[in-house]
Amino acid sequence: MSGRTTLTIVLAAGEGTRMRSSLPKVLHPVAGRPLISHVLAAAPGGKSDALAVVVGPDHQAVIDEIKRSRPEAKTFVQRERLGTAHAVLAAREAIAAGADDILIAFGDTPLIDATTFERMRAALKDGAALAVLGFRAADPTGYGRLLEDNGQLAAIREHADASEAERAVTLCNAGVMAFAGKTALKILDGIGNGNSKGEYYLTDAVAIVRELGLRAVVIETSEDEVRGINTKSQLAEAEQVMQRKLRQAALDAGVTLIAPETVFLAADTTFGKDVTIEPFVVIGPGVAIDDGAVIHSFSNIVGARIGKNASIGPYARLRPGTVLGEGVRIGNFVETKAADLEAGVKVNHLTYIGDTHIGENANIGAGTITCNYDGFDKHRTEIGAGAFVGSNSSLVAPVKIGAGAFIGSGSVITRDVPDDSLAVERSQQTVREGWVKRFREMKMLNRKPKSQK
Amino acid sequence: MSGRTTLTIVLAAGEGTRMRSSLPKVLHPVAGRPLISHVLAAAPGGKSDALAVVVGPDHQAVIDEIKRSRPEAKTFVQRERLGTAHAVLAAREAIAAGADDILIAFGDTPLIDATTFERMRAALKDGAALAVLGFRAADPTGYGRLLEDNGQLAAIREHADASEAERAVTLCNAGVMAFAGKTALKILDGIGNGNSKGEYYLTDAVAIVRELGLRAVVIETSEDEVRGINTKSQLAEAEQVMQRKLRQAALDAGVTLIAPETVFLAADTTFGKDVTIEPFVVIGPGVAIDDGAVIHSFSNIVGARIGKNASIGPYARLRPGTVLGEGVRIGNFVETKAADLEAGVKVNHLTYIGDTHIGENANIGAGTITCNYDGFDKHRTEIGAGAFVGSNSSLVAPVKIGAGAFIGSGSVITRDVPDDSLAVERSQQTVREGWVKRFREMKMLNRKPKSQK
Amino acid sequence: MSGRTTLTIVLAAGEGTRMRSSLPKVLHPVAGRPLISHVLAAAPGGKSDALAVVVGPDHQAVIDEIKRSRPEAKTFVQRERLGTAHAVLAAREAIAAGADDILIAFGDTPLIDATTFERMRAALKDGAALAVLGFRAADPTGYGRLLEDNGQLAAIREHADASEAERAVTLCNAGVMAFAGKTALKILDGIGNGNSKGEYYLTDAVAIVRELGLRAVVIETSEDEVRGINTKSQLAEAEQVMQRKLRQAALDAGVTLIAPETVFLAADTTFGKDVTIEPFVVIGPGVAIDDGAVIHSFSNIVGARIGKNASIGPYARLRPGTVLGEGVRIGNFVETKAADLEAGVKVNHLTYIGDTHIGENANIGAGTITCNYDGFDKHRTEIGAGAFVGSNSSLVAPVKIGAGAFIGSGSVITRDVPDDSLAVERSQQTVREGWVKRFREMKMLNRKPKSQK
Repeated sequence: MSGRTTLTIVLAAGEGTRMRSSLPKVLHPVAGRPLISHVLAAAPGGKSDALAVVVGPDHQAVIDEIKRSRPEAKTFVQRERLGTAHAVLAAREAIAAGADDILIAFGDTPLIDATTFERMRAALKDGAALAVLGFRAADPTGYGRLLEDNGQLAAIREHADASEAERAVTLCNAGVMAFAGKTALKILDGIGNGNSKGEYYLTDAVAIVRELGLRAVVIETSEDEVRGINTKSQLAEAEQVMQRKLRQAALDAGVTLIAPETVFLAADTTFGKDVTIEPFVVIGPGVAIDDGAVIHSFSNIVGARIGKNASIGPYARLRPGTVLGEGVRIGNFVETKAADLEAGVKVNHLTYIGDTHIGENANIGAGTITCNYDGFDKHRTEIGAGAFVGSNSSLVAPVKIGAGAFIGSGSVITRDVPDDSLAVERSQQTVREGWVKRFREMKMLNRKPKSQK
Repeated sequence: MSGRTTLTIVLAAGEGTRMRSSLPKVLHPVAGRPLISHVLAAAPGGKSDALAVVVGPDHQAVIDEIKRSRPEAKTFVQRERLGTAHAVLAAREAIAAGADDILIAFGDTPLIDATTFERMRAALKDGAALAVLGFRAADPTGYGRLLEDNGQLAAIREHADASEAERAVTLCNAGVMAFAGKTALKILDGIGNGNSKGEYYLTDAVAIVRELGLRAVVIETSEDEVRGINTKSQLAEAEQVMQRKLRQAALDAGVTLIAPETVFLAADTTFGKDVTIEPFVVIGPGVAIDDGAVIHSFSNIVGARIGKNASIGPYARLRPGTVLGEGVRIGNFVETKAADLEAGVKVNHLTYIGDTHIGENANIGAGTITCNYDGFDKHRTEIGAGAFVGSNSSLVAPVKIGAGAFIGSGSVITRDVPDDSLAVERSQQTVREGWVKRFREMKMLNRKPKSQK
Repeated sequence: MSGRTTLTIVLAAGEGTRMRSSLPKVLHPVAGRPLISHVLAAAPGGKSDALAVVVGPDHQAVIDEIKRSRPEAKTFVQRERLGTAHAVLAAREAIAAGADDILIAFGDTPLIDATTFERMRAALKDGAALAVLGFRAADPTGYGRLLEDNGQLAAIREHADASEAERAVTLCNAGVMAFAGKTALKILDGIGNGNSKGEYYLTDAVAIVRELGLRAVVIETSEDEVRGINTKSQLAEAEQVMQRKLRQAALDAGVTLIAPETVFLAADTTFGKDVTIEPFVVIGPGVAIDDGAVIHSFSNIVGARIGKNASIGPYARLRPGTVLGEGVRIGNFVETKAADLEAGVKVNHLTYIGDTHIGENANIGAGTITCNYDGFDKHRTEIGAGAFVGSNSSLVAPVKIGAGAFIGSGSVITRDVPDDSLAVERSQQTVREGWVKRFREMKMLNRKPKSQK
C-alpha cells in the first residue's frame, strides 16, 4: 500500500498459564516456528513499516526470538497486566512516532494471514478510524458479538451482556484491530477501566469512535485464521490447520504426497518440481528439496538442502548442516550432520556421517561411522571423490581419505589415506575347528537343573 | 459408596468367533491392555467389593490375565453357552454370598467407566431392584429398545419384536445391569428359556422385576462407552476411542502433543510436567515420563522410566527394563533393554545397550554393541561414570569398563578395563599405494562384454 | 459372462499437465500400482476378452507398463488429441475385429471395480446399444447430467447447457461407457465435431443412439468409484479411498490392525490368519504375510514373503527378494534384501543382510553386515544352520559360514569357516592405565581461554 506508513503492534505479554508450561506461550512452535514468529512474518515489513512487540516482564527468551525473526522490531515491556488497551499503550512511544495505519495483532494467533492485514489497512485508507476483524463462529458462545448498523460497526457486545437477539448474531470479535494513526492515541487514551476487573479493554474503542463521530467497520475472515491459542489442545489444533495449509500448498505446487495427512512440513520448507514424499515423514525448519528428489517413509529432516533427484530414506535422519548434491542416495538408518555430500555419493545403510565432506560418487559402506568426537572436541573427516569405504569401518577424525581410495571392511582408520590406495586395519582370521562342539558341551554341563536355580 | 458391599460379575465366556482369531476375544488388547482388564480396572475395587468373572471352558489364558490384573477375582467356568442369564448364574456361589449391589458387566466392553458403575449403584441405593444401562443409538437398528413409563423401565423390546412406534425409540439396551442383592437371585432364577433358541436372557429380568412390583430404572450413558467388540473393525474403533481419550487427557495435563492423532499411548502411561511428544510415537504399557522430557518422532517405548529433561529419539526403541536418569540422551537407531542409565549418559547413535548399567555422564559412541548373548546365556555389562566408549566398539559381556575409562574406536573389549585407562583392540593400519588402480583394471578385464553374457 | 466376447478400450493418452510432473499421468501409483494398471486389472480378462489401450505419442513408458501388467493388450497411439470419441477410434482396428460388448474405460480412473464392468455388460446383453456409467454427485456443479426418460437415458446435458431444472439433477456422467459391438462403429463414426472446440465427444453417442431408435441406459455407481485423477490432490484422495478399501478388507479377513488409518497396504498384499499389524507400517507391492505373523511399528516391507508366526520390526526394512521362514525374527534397524532366511533365524538388531542365504535357527548378532558389494560387483553370503555370528561382524562376500559355526564379535570374515568352528579376526586388547588422566590434562592445556578465540 504505497505511500502509507504502518505500525504493527503485536501483543505478546500474556502469561499463558493454561499452557501448563515453563516456556512462554508465544514461543511454543507450530510447524516448527514459534507462534509469535508466524505473526511477525505476517506483519507488514516494507520500508515504511514499523513493528512493535509488547512483552511480559520476564520474557527475555521472547525478546531473543523477536530479534531473530524481525531484527528491526522494537520491544516494549508491559510491567502490569491491566488489559489489552493497557498493553497497546505500553508501546505509546511507537504510536506517538506517527504512522498512517496502526495494526494491533496478537502473539498467540499464529494463523493470521498477511492479506488480512492488507484488507484492514484498505478500510482505513477508505476513511475508517477503526477496523475490527470478525469471524462467523460455528459456536459463538462466549465471544463478543460484532453488532453492525448501516454497514458500520455499532458495538462489540460481550456474551454476558448480550440480549437474546444479540446472542443470535454469529459475527464475533477476533480481537485484531486497525486504527487510523491520526486518531489512534486519542481513542486509546479515552478507554477507561470502569469495569468489574478494573482493566482497560480495546473493545471499548468502538464506543469512543462512535462518540467522536468517526467510522468503525468490520473486516470478516474465517474462524480458522483467528484461532487464539491458550491450551495444548488449541496448540495441536493450530498445528493441524497449519499443516493442512502447508500440505495443500505443496500438492498445488505439484509435490506428490502419497498420504498428505502423514507428512509434517515446516512453514519454510521449499520444493522443486516433481518431488515425491512417501507416508510418515517429518520435516523441520530450514529444509529445501530440489527437483525430482524422493523422500521415502519414516524420514526426519531438519536444516538440510537436498539436491536434484536425490533419494532419501526410508529411515534417514538428516540434521542441520546437511547439504546433498545431485543424485545423492541416503539409505536406511543413516544419520547425517554438518555433512556436505557431492553429487552421486551413496550412503545406503546404518551409518553416521558428521562434520564431513565427501567428494563425488564416493560409496560409504554399511555400518560406517565417522568418529568426529574424542570426548572433548569435534573433528572433521574428508573423503575424496570416488572413494569406497568398506562396511563397519570407523574413520577417526581428523582424517582424510584420498580420492579413489579403498578402505577394507571393519578397519579403524586413524591416519590419512593417499589417493587410489587401499587402507586396511585388520588381523589374521583364525579358525579353531570343532571349538563350538566343546563350547556347547561345556555350556550344557554348567547348566544346573531348573529345580536347583 | 461407603457402607454398601458390591459384587461385580464380568461375563467373559464368549467364543468371539467373529474376531477370526485363536486368541480369546477378551484378551485382544486396546491401548496395550486386554479388553477384559479394562473392564476389571473399572469395576469397584474397595475393601467391601468382590469380583467374579465367568469364563469359557478352555480359557486358561483368560484366567491367567484375570489373576494378573485383579488377583482377588474369583473365576467361574460356564460349561455350556445358554445365554447371558445362564452365564451370570455360573457365578451363583458368589451371588449367594450376599452383596448389597450386584453389577453385571461384559468382558468385551472395554470403554466402560468406573463412574457409570457408581451411577448404577446409586440407583439401587435409591430403591431400584434393577438398573439397566442405556444409550442413545445413532442408528438403533438391531438393538433392544428401552421402553420407559413414568420414569421407570417398563420393558426391553428386541428390535424384531418392536412396533413401528417402539422402533422410533432411540434409547437402547447396553447390556450392563445392576441388581439389588437381596432380590437378585430370585429374579435371575425366574428367567426361563421359553424362546426360539432355548436360552436364558438377562433382558427378561425386567418383566420379572415388574411382576414382583419392584422398580427397574434406566441409567443413560454415551454410545461410545458401551461399544461391544465382536470384530477386528470394532476392535480398531475401540482403540480409536480409547486413544482419543488418552490423548485428550495428556493434553489437558499439559503434555505437548504436536500431532495428537499420531501418538499412541497405553492406558497406564504417566507424564510429568512440560513433556513434549513429537509426531509418530508409539508407547506401550509400563511407561513413565518425567518432567521436561522430549520424545522425538518415530520412537517406540515399552516398560521404561524416562528421567527429567531426557531426550529420546528420533528412532529410539526403549524396551522393558530401561531406566533413564535425568538428562539422559538416547539418539537415533538406538535400542535399550534392561538398561539402567544414570544421569547425563549419552547414547546418540546406532547402538544396542542390553543388560547394562551405565554410570553418570558416560558417552557411548555410535555403533557400540553390548554383546550380552553368547548363544546360550545372557551376561551383564557395567560401564563406569564418565567413561567414553569409542565408535563401533563391541563390549563382550560379562565385562566391566571402569569409571573415566576410554575405549578406542572399533575395539572388541573382552576383559575388564580399569578406571581412567585407555583400552584398545586394534591392528596396525596398512596402506597399499596404487592398489585400487590395479584392482580396477583387474575388474575391468574380468568384465565380459555384455553381448557374451 | 460366458458366450459373449468383450473388447475393453482404455483411454490413456491424456497429457496430465495439471499433475505438474514429467511422469505420464497414468503411471502415477496408487496403493503401489500405477493408475492404469488398476484399470487394466479391473478389465475383463477371460479367454474371449480383448484389451486395447490408447496412449499418447511419446508414452513408451506407458506402453511398457501396459505390457507388464497385461501382456496381451494391444496399444494404439492417438497422434492428435481431438476428443474422447477420436481417442476411441484410434483403436478402430480392435473395434472392427468385432466383439459382443465394447467397454470404454479411462486410465486415470483407478478405483473402477470389475463388477461395475459386469453390470454394464449385463445391460448390453439385455438389449441396450449403449450403457453409460453414472453417479450421484455430492456437488454436481461442472458435471454432465444424465437425463432419464422412462428408464432410458435420454440425454447427457453438459453443465453449461443445462436448464435450472436439469441442474437440479444429481445423476452425473462418469465417462465410462459400454457399446453393443454390432452398432458401435456406426454410432462412433456418427459423432461429429461441430462444437466450439472442434472435438469429437463420446457424450454425443447418446443422441445418435436415440436417433437410430436404439436403447441407451444408465448404470449407477458410487462417486468414489469413478473419481478421475487430474491433480496431485486428487491422486492423494484416490490413495485414501483405496487404502480405506484395502484396510477394511484386511480387517474383514481377520487381520488385527491396531490403527488401520496408519497402515498403508498395496493392492496385492495377501494375509494369512491371525496376522497383526501395529501402527505406522508401510507395505509396498509383492508382499505375502503368513498366519500368525506380527508386523511391529515403523516397518517398511516391499517384495517379501513372511512366514508363519514371524515377528518383524519395529523398524524393519524388508526389501525385494526377502523370504522369511516360519518363526523368523527380524528386529529393529535391520535391512534385508535378496535374503532367504530359513525357519527360526534371528536377526534382531542393527544389521544388513543382502544377497544371503541363512540356514535354520542361525543367530545373527547386532551390527552384523554382509559386505556384498566390492565397489564393482555383488557377491553372495551363505550362513549355515545354527551358526552364531557375533556382534559387529563383517562377512565379506563371497563367503560361507559353516553350520553351527561361531564368529567372534567384531571379526571381519574373508575366508570360509568350516562347520562347528570358531572363527575370530581380532588383535590383543591393550590397556594403558592412567592414560585418560594425561589425555584430559593435555586437552585442558590446549584449550585457549574463550576471550582469545
